[in-house]
Amino acid sequence: MILCNPANLDEKIKAFSAFGDTGKGGVTRFSLSPEALAARAEFRKRMEAIGAAVVTDDMANLYATLPGTEDLPAIAAGSHLDSVRQGGNFDGVLGVLSAMEALETIALAKVPHRHPLTAVVWTNEEGARFEPAMMSSGVICGKFDKQKMLASVAKDRPGYTFGEALEASGYMGDEANRLSPEKYAAMLELHIEQGPVLEAEGYDIGVVDGVCGMINFEFTFLGQADHAGTTPMKYRKDALYAAVKVIQHLHDELDRFDPALVYTTGKISAHPNIHTIIPDEVRFTLDARHYDPAVIRQVLSVIRSLPDEVARCKVSYAEAWSRKSVAFDEALVSMVDRSAQACGYSRLRMHSGPGHDAQYVADILPTAMIFVPSVEGHSHCELEYTLTEACAKGVNVLMETLLEIDRALS
Amino acid sequence: MILCNPANLDEKIKAFSAFGDTGKGGVTRFSLSPEALAARAEFRKRMEAIGAAVVTDDMANLYATLPGTEDLPAIAAGSHLDSVRQGGNFDGVLGVLSAMEALETIALAKVPHRHPLTAVVWTNEEGARFEPAMMSSGVICGKFDKQKMLASVAKDRPGYTFGEALEASGYMGDEANRLSPEKYAAMLELHIEQGPVLEAEGYDIGVVDGVCGMINFEFTFLGQADHAGTTPMKYRKDALYAAVKVIQHLHDELDRFDPALVYTTGKISAHPNIHTIIPDEVRFTLDARHYDPAVIRQVLSVIRSLPDEVARCKVSYAEAWSRKSVAFDEALVSMVDRSAQACGYSRLRMHSGPGHDAQYVADILPTAMIFVPSVEGHSHCELEYTLTEACAKGVNVLMETLLEIDRALS
Repeated sequence: MILCNPANLDEKIKAFSAFGDTGKGGVTRFSLSPEALAARAEFRKRMEAIGAAVVTDDMANLYATLPGTEDLPAIAAGSHLDSVRQGGNFDGVLGVLSAMEALETIALAKVPHRHPLTAVVWTNEEGARFEPAMMSSGVICGKFDKQKMLASVAKDRPGYTFGEALEASGYMGDEANRLSPEKYAAMLELHIEQGPVLEAEGYDIGVVDGVCGMINFEFTFLGQADHAGTTPMKYRKDALYAAVKVIQHLHDELDRFDPALVYTTGKISAHPNIHTIIPDEVRFTLDARHYDPAVIRQVLSVIRSLPDEVARCKVSYAEAWSRKSVAFDEALVSMVDRSAQACGYSRLRMHSGPGHDAQYVADILPTAMIFVPSVEGHSHCELEYTLTEACAKGVNVLMETLLEIDRALS
Repeated sequence: MILCNPANLDEKIKAFSAFGDTGKGGVTRFSLSPEALAARAEFRKRMEAIGAAVVTDDMANLYATLPGTEDLPAIAAGSHLDSVRQGGNFDGVLGVLSAMEALETIALAKVPHRHPLTAVVWTNEEGARFEPAMMSSGVICGKFDKQKMLASVAKDRPGYTFGEALEASGYMGDEANRLSPEKYAAMLELHIEQGPVLEAEGYDIGVVDGVCGMINFEFTFLGQADHAGTTPMKYRKDALYAAVKVIQHLHDELDRFDPALVYTTGKISAHPNIHTIIPDEVRFTLDARHYDPAVIRQVLSVIRSLPDEVARCKVSYAEAWSRKSVAFDEALVSMVDRSAQACGYSRLRMHSGPGHDAQYVADILPTAMIFVPSVEGHSHCELEYTLTEACAKGVNVLMETLLEIDRALS
């Protein structure tokens, strides 16, 4: 079995951490920013150095391909180079570096492979500057309208569109270069877990068989803004107290469901939010995720059975958005599992809570994901960290799976 | 018994509502603003027209005095002309207009009175532009250091101090003109209730025997910011859930105390306040008020017995400020009560929840307050409203009490 050299991977992690370095252990590397373009140039340079041909498609997705020995569709692996503001050195970029490391190891060791092997960089996965997230994989997989995406305006620069940033980047290529079922046989995405489970439970590798479905609701409570010093308790319509009762009720009810259900009330606002005035309007969000749609339906039934009035305040809610669960290709998931086993790594079959480009690609190609542990589960912050040794295990599983697919597919 | 003419009072309410009119039923009339100066000029003009002598002190408090028939200390009545942003046409200004109306009625009807009668305008009661509230009554009653108050900076104009606004106003007068026990025998302040009790329970007049003590705490909950989609419930440290549990606990415990206790969690913030991230820091405020210090001590014991940790989050709290209960002069309170009875009005003995200039004046002079009902309890907003007829009842009680004091005091 061929294994990567952790020192080489470590060098890559450190080199790419310089692009957008915040000086505090993380990066700010918005899609198509100068920092992201510098990372792309480095990707291109390094891939061409090992003999890969690099092309881009019309959404600036980058494809670096090592030719195979036969005229077969390519097998892809990759992720994204952009980050959130003050993000970490692993989310996204590790999936790109792993693909680079795998292809470099294979190329340098001259490991024979029949299919072309492609390292992919997806443009604007985070949606941190131009919404939505997973924009470019979404466009090429038919989830988003391209013209609407090109018109997406920078959050920090009025009128400046994603289309203009794309044009200015120099990375806008040919639509014919898009990843497609005609030219590609499968895609793998390696990613940090972004959660605490693998580390806490002592697993090397997460074998990801799908992405959880989710719902996101906003709840609104309308009461009456009265003076804190003059209004007897019995006359109050305290919208914050109503919200508190409903958050507690959600915990009481949802905790009875499958323990794999995760739900979060992450955002809350009160109006007028003054210490001497009873809040007349409070809003909070509920994000709930589970792989099994039946559990999501249980959550919905709890929401829909809420009373119209709580603590004399009006209760309403609206679905902000939702997504269905995505199942990855079972044959591919099994190959990841077998590869991890072959490498001697402990592994946990799991679902992804967050969304990834792979979930859109799964609509057009056999796709699977590989997770490596996140130290203390930190992600989307400068504390995000995974030991190089743990990353290298992920590369080995990725590499073994690529070669396994190469052997298995016609 | 002499009664005011409600039509005259109505004219005054309408005339003063023009100063800082928001066009939406209320006023924005910050202390010493052009709008407030216009209201002061109108006060001065009208008081001089009925034969009052108008002076100002070194904090721009205005005193309009009708001479008495004997060489005795004056009896004062008044309130303030400034408002909060988008405040109403009654908070403060009605106490000034009532004093004007009472003095005008007495002057025009040539009702004899031994003591001088003074209508007072307190400068900067609201503290809406220059903090703190009740600034000028606080200075002359020894609560605040004058130099610190002069250095108070406008919230909306960096570097511009209250002292500069005072100088520019043209109303800065002589310290010798301050209200003092040597020159004044008593003070009455008429005010809207700013709460729903008088209206809801059908009383004409609130006989206010004191101001509730209060405490204000800020609670902080520290958890851990993790991804909503990747962190199993059992690993979470959700600071918002911890705050929810403590708010519910406060309701459960505090609701067991005297029903006159009012407490409010008016302000809440969550960090990072993003729907897909578990909040790692949540803060909320608790304002609690009761006239009896023993009840406030009960509230403090509930706060102090909170556990250090709730829902795996660290709990801490700090007192932002507090004030002790203020008891008004019992003889004066009884006179207000007898005057209301003599007028044939229904009345409720009550405490004030909010602070008023009268509570500082109570430290240096016999003082009492008269409340009139607030429609639906609205205050500090454009909906603030009291029927002219209800205001006129307040003027009649104020006038009768002024004359009763005049008769009773030597």
